[in-house]
Amino acid sequence: MTLSNTIERLTEMVSIDWDATQTILNHDHQHKLQLIQAICNQRSKGKQLRSLLVLSIGHLFHACNETHHQLAAIVEVIHYATLLHDDVIDQAVKRHNKPTAWTTHGNKASILVGDYMFSRAFRWISELKDPIIIQSLAQATQLIVEGEVEQHQVKGLLSLDEETYFTIIHAKTAELFRQTCMLGAYAAHASPTLQQHAEAFGLNIGIAFQLQDDLLDYVSADSGKSTGQDWSEGKVTYPLIVAYRKDPQTMKRFFKNKESFDDVLHFLKTVNAFKDTQEKINHYTDLALDALNQLPDHDIKQPLLELTEWMRHREY
Amino acid sequence: MTLSNTIERLTEMVSIDWDATQTILNHDHQHKLQLIQAICNQRSKGKQLRSLLVLSIGHLFHACNETHHQLAAIVEVIHYATLLHDDVIDQAVKRHNKPTAWTTHGNKASILVGDYMFSRAFRWISELKDPIIIQSLAQATQLIVEGEVEQHQVKGLLSLDEETYFTIIHAKTAELFRQTCMLGAYAAHASPTLQQHAEAFGLNIGIAFQLQDDLLDYVSADSGKSTGQDWSEGKVTYPLIVAYRKDPQTMKRFFKNKESFDDVLHFLKTVNAFKDTQEKINHYTDLALDALNQLPDHDIKQPLLELTEWMRHREY
Repeated sequence: MTLSNTIERLTEMVSIDWDATQTILNHDHQHKLQLIQAICNQRSKGKQLRSLLVLSIGHLFHACNETHHQLAAIVEVIHYATLLHDDVIDQAVKRHNKPTAWTTHGNKASILVGDYMFSRAFRWISELKDPIIIQSLAQATQLIVEGEVEQHQVKGLLSLDEETYFTIIHAKTAELFRQTCMLGAYAAHASPTLQQHAEAFGLNIGIAFQLQDDLLDYVSADSGKSTGQDWSEGKVTYPLIVAYRKDPQTMKRFFKNKESFDDVLHFLKTVNAFKDTQEKINHYTDLALDALNQLPDHDIKQPLLELTEWMRHREY
Repeated sequence: MTLSNTIERLTEMVSIDWDATQTILNHDHQHKLQLIQAICNQRSKGKQLRSLLVLSIGHLFHACNETHHQLAAIVEVIHYATLLHDDVIDQAVKRHNKPTAWTTHGNKASILVGDYMFSRAFRWISELKDPIIIQSLAQATQLIVEGEVEQHQVKGLLSLDEETYFTIIHAKTAELFRQTCMLGAYAAHASPTLQQHAEAFGLNIGIAFQLQDDLLDYVSADSGKSTGQDWSEGKVTYPLIVAYRKDPQTMKRFFKNKESFDDVLHFLKTVNAFKDTQEKINHYTDLALDALNQLPDHDIKQPLLELTEWMRHREY
């Protein structure tokens, strides 16, 4: 079994709703402006984890409907908008082993089409005419961007404290997972208590997901992103925070001298930075599992539990 | 009398509401993230024409209220978001004679804080909880960005037709003026017919404004933007469309060889490109005046008529 198998199984279980979501997402593939079309078509589909969560939660409540399809499309488009701008900002050349949009169409086009994606999501959200949905997604979008701004602001700050790091990953990543799962339950008319469990599930799987992403940037060579990107950019994430806490002098020297990636990998291992990061991932995965277990029983719950388990050791 | 005098007079007439709007706009000057604060503080206040129009129209209907203050802040923030990204894309070093944000804080910060402004506007809009307002501003935001994308897509295309040019300036500029004025009337509970007149006023003043902007890029040295920027970037606007229609061979040669700005100015004068652009500006100004004249009488109408007249020959 792999994470891909689990995702495939979930996708099959929600297949009609998945197709409906893809139809909405493909809407802009025929956009009258060629540049928007081209960048939409170039988009790497990735895991579409956020879409899958909205639809799966809709199913879990036996009430996946058109609002879920719209929500599933909207959260992917918001996510895609942030990726387009991220890739310009980080000048990342690949994502999921495909060339990033700016490498093909230039920075300017990527900035503008990213803006287009935000405005498109906003338009779709407004069409749902539901104040709860509108405000939740408006809040999520603002937090994501604030998270990105704060991350940019603290770049190169080795003494970044754990609290600020978690504030940033909550904002830039977990908030959208949180609102995604909450809205999946809300749109299925789940009780407020069950909505809260769905929300807690989303928040914690989101934190585990980003921690794992930050770990993979060091330990995986198959993530489709160049490994070691965070190190070369001076982006301080959990493994470095651990290492700096344990051996500030050595860490400072490594960071200041921009030591080779192999050397830093070796050092991080010696201070158990990866092991400690893994423990944090396990902690948030456990919290996500606890929350998921509070949700009603349904055939889809088992693959959702498996998906959550994968947060501990996914490889991409 | 100058345009500044007219703007000052209008601002005085709506002063209490103007101050309330500024208080909302200054909200982010105390943002917890220093980068957002810094870029907000660096913002050149400019004319804030869009704010002024919402508030003036509210007054004209004797009903300027809190919604107008929110709307006035929102339209400025949307406008500011687009400027932040525009300046990165065009690498413009000055706006209203002040250094642009990217020159001080870098491209990355400007992209992210632009995103923040969009998300901030979206959040404020969502808090108004009015479906008409939400959908109007969602549509405006999407059109603005589509206009920017299309403008980027046709850059360097000398054979740009007049229709596409007007589609672009409607989208990137006039749409926000249109919605701004319509919503100013809507929020004052004006009748649907009067809302339509307000909308027509906004649309036409917006088109005249952008045509004048494009003309000023050639003929003014005091606009605070470097004169000739459009020419040096290969951005085709109305004066070039006229010149290309009248003498395609010469225009093609000038464009291809990137002739000096002085030489192109001379050529554009000889084919009456500026005169023809001025006539178009007059045409849309007249339409705006016609629409404004359909609105109820009020002390503020006279300075609004004057403001509209200024579209013919404003110098900044």
